[in-house]
Parts: sequence; C-alpha cells; structure tokens
Amino acid sequence: MIDLQPVKGTRDFFPEEMRLRNWLFEVWRSVSVQSGFEEYDTCVLEHEDLYIRKAGDEISKQLFSFEDKSGRRLSLRPEMTPSLARLVLQHNKSLSFPIKWFSMPQCFRYERMTKGRRREHFQWNADIIGQPEMVAEAEILMLLISACESMGLTANEFQVFINDRRILNAILTQINVPVELHSTVLVILDKRDKISAKDLGEMLEDAGLSAKQVGQLNEFLSESDLNELKENLTDTTGIEQLQHLMELMDTAGYSGYLKFDISIVRGLSYYTGAVFEVNSPEKKHRAICGGGRYDSLLSTFGGETVPAVGFGFGDVVVLDVLQELNRFPELQKKLDYTIIPFASEQVGIALKIASELRMKGSVVDCNFSMKKMKKSMRQANESGAAKAILLFPEELSEDKVVIRDLQLHEQKPVKISDLIS
Amino acid sequence: MIDLQPVKGTRDFFPEEMRLRNWLFEVWRSVSVQSGFEEYDTCVLEHEDLYIRKAGDEISKQLFSFEDKSGRRLSLRPEMTPSLARLVLQHNKSLSFPIKWFSMPQCFRYERMTKGRRREHFQWNADIIGQPEMVAEAEILMLLISACESMGLTANEFQVFINDRRILNAILTQINVPVELHSTVLVILDKRDKISAKDLGEMLEDAGLSAKQVGQLNEFLSESDLNELKENLTDTTGIEQLQHLMELMDTAGYSGYLKFDISIVRGLSYYTGAVFEVNSPEKKHRAICGGGRYDSLLSTFGGETVPAVGFGFGDVVVLDVLQELNRFPELQKKLDYTIIPFASEQVGIALKIASELRMKGSVVDCNFSMKKMKKSMRQANESGAAKAILLFPEELSEDKVVIRDLQLHEQKPVKISDLIS
Repeated sequence: MIDLQPVKGTRDFFPEEMRLRNWLFEVWRSVSVQSGFEEYDTCVLEHEDLYIRKAGDEISKQLFSFEDKSGRRLSLRPEMTPSLARLVLQHNKSLSFPIKWFSMPQCFRYERMTKGRRREHFQWNADIIGQPEMVAEAEILMLLISACESMGLTANEFQVFINDRRILNAILTQINVPVELHSTVLVILDKRDKISAKDLGEMLEDAGLSAKQVGQLNEFLSESDLNELKENLTDTTGIEQLQHLMELMDTAGYSGYLKFDISIVRGLSYYTGAVFEVNSPEKKHRAICGGGRYDSLLSTFGGETVPAVGFGFGDVVVLDVLQELNRFPELQKKLDYTIIPFASEQVGIALKIASELRMKGSVVDCNFSMKKMKKSMRQANESGAAKAILLFPEELSEDKVVIRDLQLHEQKPVKISDLIS
Repeated sequence: MIDLQPVKGTRDFFPEEMRLRNWLFEVWRSVSVQSGFEEYDTCVLEHEDLYIRKAGDEISKQLFSFEDKSGRRLSLRPEMTPSLARLVLQHNKSLSFPIKWFSMPQCFRYERMTKGRRREHFQWNADIIGQPEMVAEAEILMLLISACESMGLTANEFQVFINDRRILNAILTQINVPVELHSTVLVILDKRDKISAKDLGEMLEDAGLSAKQVGQLNEFLSESDLNELKENLTDTTGIEQLQHLMELMDTAGYSGYLKFDISIVRGLSYYTGAVFEVNSPEKKHRAICGGGRYDSLLSTFGGETVPAVGFGFGDVVVLDVLQELNRFPELQKKLDYTIIPFASEQVGIALKIASELRMKGSVVDCNFSMKKMKKSMRQANESGAAKAILLFPEELSEDKVVIRDLQLHEQKPVKISDLIS
C-alpha cells in the first residue's frame, strides 16, 4: 500500500476545500483587478541563488533546494518578491512604470510546523513598482483593506500595524550602531515577539551591539507615540513620511485602519521604508499578511534602483481567522439539472439532452446509477440540483421528459424540443 | 547580476501571457463545471514512490526528484493521475461513486526540449471514477469536445482518435505474447510514430517477442477498419465496447468526432480500456490531449479495483495550435475609469473617488505621474480605460470633476457626489 497522505506539511484539496480556496482566490483576484492591478506568474522552480542573501534571513535557511539532472541548483520559491524583481529587471526597458501587478503563487518553506505554518501556502502578492511616493503605500493598503472587508472581516476585526524601516534606522544611527550592522540587527529585532528579552539582548550583543546600546534601543522601542518619538530623533524622515501616509489614508476615507507600531520590523532584509502587518486589533494571531517598501532589492540583483512596495497575504492564517469567526461563506455544489434515465437504452438520449442544455449555458449532470425512483430522488436531492429531468419510458415515447422542481416538489411533463430549443 | 531568465524549460507569465493563461483556465473550468465536474487539487510535491512503476514508463525516468532535509524522497508531480488515485483511496469510504473531478495542475518532466515540450506545463485533468460502463468514456469525450469548441476550434479542425487497450491485448494474446509482457510491449508500441520500423522491431524482440510475432503484430496494426479486425480476432470485447461507445456518441449528437485508430496506445502502463488522443484530422501536431480508462491503477496502489476514465490536456500544444490558426482571443487590459490628478494636493481626493467607485463595482486605476494634460491624455488612452476622470482645480473647488469619454472624445463636469452616490 502506498502512503495515502500528502507530503508532510502540504495539503490536499478535496472539492469542498477547493471551493473555499477558489472563493478566496476569487476575492484576491477581483479586488486586485478592480484596483487596476494586472496578474502575472512565474514558475514555482527558480534558481537557488535568487534566495541567497547575506543578512542571515531565515528564508535562506528554509529552502526546498536540490540539484537537477544537469547539476543546476534549484529551489521551490519560498516567496514571490525575488521572482517579481527578476521579471521587472528582465523587461526593464519595455515596461512603463509605475506598474501594479499581483500574483497568487504557492510558496514553500521547510520549517517546523506550528499553527498557521505549513511547508507550503498560497500567498497573494500585490506590488507597485516604480512609484517612489507614499501614494504607492496608500494604494497597497487600500487594496489590503478592501480584500479583508470582501472576505467578511469588519473594520473592528482587523488592524493595519505600520512602522517604517527609516525610523528604525534613525534610532540605530542615533545610538551609534554602524550602518552595515542595521540589516542584521533588524532581522534579530523581528524575533522580539517570539523570544525573551534576555535572549534578544544576547543576540544583539553577539551581532556587535554594546550592552549600553541594547538598553538605549529597548528604550526607543518602548515608544508608542509617533510625535514623542519625533522629538527624540535627529533624522525624522521616516516619521514624517508615515504621518503623510496616514493623512492620505484619512482623506481617502480610511481613518482608523492604520496604527503606528514600532515593533513591526518584518523578517526580510530587503525592506527600506514602510513595513506593515495586518492582524486582529489585539494581535492574537500570526500576522494575516505583511509587506513594505523595498527600494533597493532590484539594485542588489544587479539592476538600477527601482522603488517598490508590496505585500504577501497567505491563505492559511486568514482562513483560520475566518473559521474562528464562523465567517466561512456557504459554498455548496450547485447544478441547474440532474438528468435521470431509468434504463440503459436511455443513456444516449440523456447525454443528448445534457449536451443541448449545457450549450444553452446550464450546469447539468447525469445520474447513470439506474436506481429505482425513490433512491434516485434521494440522490437528486443530494446532488445540489435545482431540477431533476426524469426519463420515463411513457413520456419518452411521446418525446417528452418529466421535469421535477426539487425545492417545490412539483413535476410536469415537457416536450424535449421545448426544453432544448 | 543574477540570471534574469527562468529555469531552463520553464516559463514566466507576464501580464499579457497571464491573460491568455487565465482565459484558457477559464474555458477548462467553465466547461468542467457545466458538465458537473468538481475541482480538486494536490500539492506539486509528492512522495517519489507514487511514480515508480515497473513497466518502464518513460515518466519514471524523467522525474524532478530530490531528498528533503529529513531524507524523504520527493518529486515534482509529472502527471496528476497518481495523486488523484491517492485522494480517492484516502477517502474511499466517504466518497459516493461515481465521482467526476477535474484539476488544472502544473506538471514537471525533465526531458529534452522540443516543439510543444517544455519541462513544465499546466495540464487540465478530468476523470470519472467509479463508473465501469462506456458512458463514462462518452461523458469524458463530450467534455473534451466541448472544451475544444469553446476554445474556438471548429469540428473540422480536430478529431478524437480512439482505440482500446483490450483490442491491443486481444491481438497480443492472439499471437501468443504472454500476458505479463503486454504492458512492456504497449509502452514500446507507443513509440511507433517516433522511431523506424526496424528500431521498433528490435525493441520488441529485445522485450521477448519472436521475429514471427513482430511480423504478425505489424500485420494486425495495419488494420484501420474495426469490423475487419473483428473478423480476425477471437476476443472481440474491446471492439464491441468501442462500437457501443461510438453509438452512444452518435445518439448524443457527436457523430463524426471519433475515429478508430489502432496506432493510439498512450505511453502510460496503467491504461486498461479505451485510449484516445485529440489532434488535427491530419495529425500534424503532437497530441493536444490524451487519456483513457485505467481500471486497475488504484488496485496497484494497494486499494480495491475502482473503474476510472480520464484525460490530461496540456496548455502548451493547444496554445501553439490556436496561435497557428490565428485563433487567440482579444485580451486587453480594461478599466472603467482612470483618475488623473494634476497636483500632489489632489492625491487624497483621487484615492477617495477611486475607492468609492470600486465599492460600486467599477474597475478603477489612478495615474499619479502628474504629467501635463497632453501626456496624461495619451497615457489615459493607453491605459485601456473607457473614461478618464480629470481633477482640475477649478472644478474641484466646486466639488466637481471632469469626466472624459475616451472613445467619443467628449467631456463634461460632474458633481463628485453624483458620481459616487
């Protein structure tokens, strides 16, 4: 007997789960298209070196990597942004910026499994490339918010927690952390929620900070008010940009969705500006989605500097959240007609009626189980069909069928030519 | 500089290509749903042993396989049928047969690249499981035919070439080939179109046939008429079943789509009954799709015998065929509105109008490039938008915007409250 389970950490989608996935994808796709984003995709297989970065990102250590039959080092993509950067660099000359693109790739990470974490997930990505102004962040956040609302979350059930890497960098500069250490320090800070203050302090000291710097850093990171922070910082660019974004969102009608949160860092080393996460207001889940500005990723790949903002929004956490809130949509299999012959000579005519009705746009199935009336009617009721078409010999001899309304429990004979004309 | 190209044999989908892929997927999905099929999916990663078969199928030699960090042997799926069989065996007890399922997985094979062959493709799969009668073949072929027609192929541009493994087995039995050699001989026969008669003969002799048997086999395989073949065979089950299927298809209104072709074998060893391919009537392409009945696959995986019929329909060959016929659909990016502010103070109000219009169901983009009127109008025309919303300071001071119809080249001021109410 073969192993009937999927590979550890991966999922099967039986029709019921697939309907839910399709519903989610359709929300993602339709809000994206409505907001002027265009869909793209790349292959789940990429060259491994697309993901090897120096700042010690966890992602580089969790790759599903292997060597193909010609010795190429390949990886299953752990995230979409590097592939997007590759596409943009490939067609740099012919694209007219800014571009607004989205995708819904399956991504793979080999990691310990916990709630909300599997070894694969589908991750909606939306990015605006080529827009240096904060209006790109505003558009991206509006898209995120309308997606959450389209999924059935109400304004008091989610919150966008936002910060800016420039604020974090200004703090590090202010306490004299050399600029070449910033990325590494930020990757460590991203773990702050998951490890003890003591462990965090040790990791920061291992990375090169003094005990005094760790103390100063902790003091800055306890600040929750943007204006107070502004008074204590020399470089206030990040704060001013974030305040500008919040004003824009207010004007656009999105007051109250954004909340400044200095603990938002994001684990990827390539972010350069705004960084954000969506979570419940009490932050009781893993982040539902996260993203930010990454103006230098394309240049680290060898291209010019191209400003970029985007997010990744996985399917696993949000479905857990919706399930907890009992907010799953009703997604039953539905048919317009189920056609039921009662003898094998009627199979051909059943197929013919099915074919004609489908050409007219109806959703039609046939039941060839050749059961007796009572069993057939039970199967018809379970099929999700609105109506059953019953092929009785008597009516068929007059070129008629009996149509039964499965809600009203009413039936009447109808000429086949009328039904399919 | 990183390598900007995708992994050899794999594709990038820029928005233009993605629109075409989405169009194809939508054809596949909508004909499937209309015919009562339900969608499922599994992960692209499977345990390697799902694909290791004894009959020397090429597919086992073309796997993208590797070992994960825990030493599991994993493969990227080369085809969907084994995963489907796994799902069915997993839920054997709770499924009510027959089931009609479809999927659109990406599949991977490490092979030499030729026209119509890459190392990945998307492959629409539709299967009926649990129906032993030929009506399952009829339903599957009707689905295939309606898909081809929905893609824009006319009845004289494609043909279903059909055969039955039981006919081939009857021939092999008739010429005294031992039954345990049948699978291996059939995998060899599948190569008949691609290699010389001499090479074929040598391969058959290597597999254990005598020169006399090879001669007898070739004689049988030159037969194109079902009835003549029937007269020369002892076991005529396969022929009778195929004739029954053809009658069913005639009654259902699909005369002329099917053509008996004894050279259709299919390369997979698990087929047990009907086998078919779609191609142009002159067979000038690789097969557009192929499939058949595989009643014993589930039992070889350790389950009970469950009758099953299905096909795989790749995206690469059919798109080549449609392109050759100049039959690609028009798929432009389309917007209802493009909103154009001319100064940075108007960005917030532009976002607000965009948001309100989207909530009403419109597809809306904004142009924040802040160009002068002439350049902005050129960009509006290129954006795919039906109308432009122009934010001029004078009208804005009266809470109005100017709406310009980009087809009619007419414009008029409109109160913002009227536009978004």
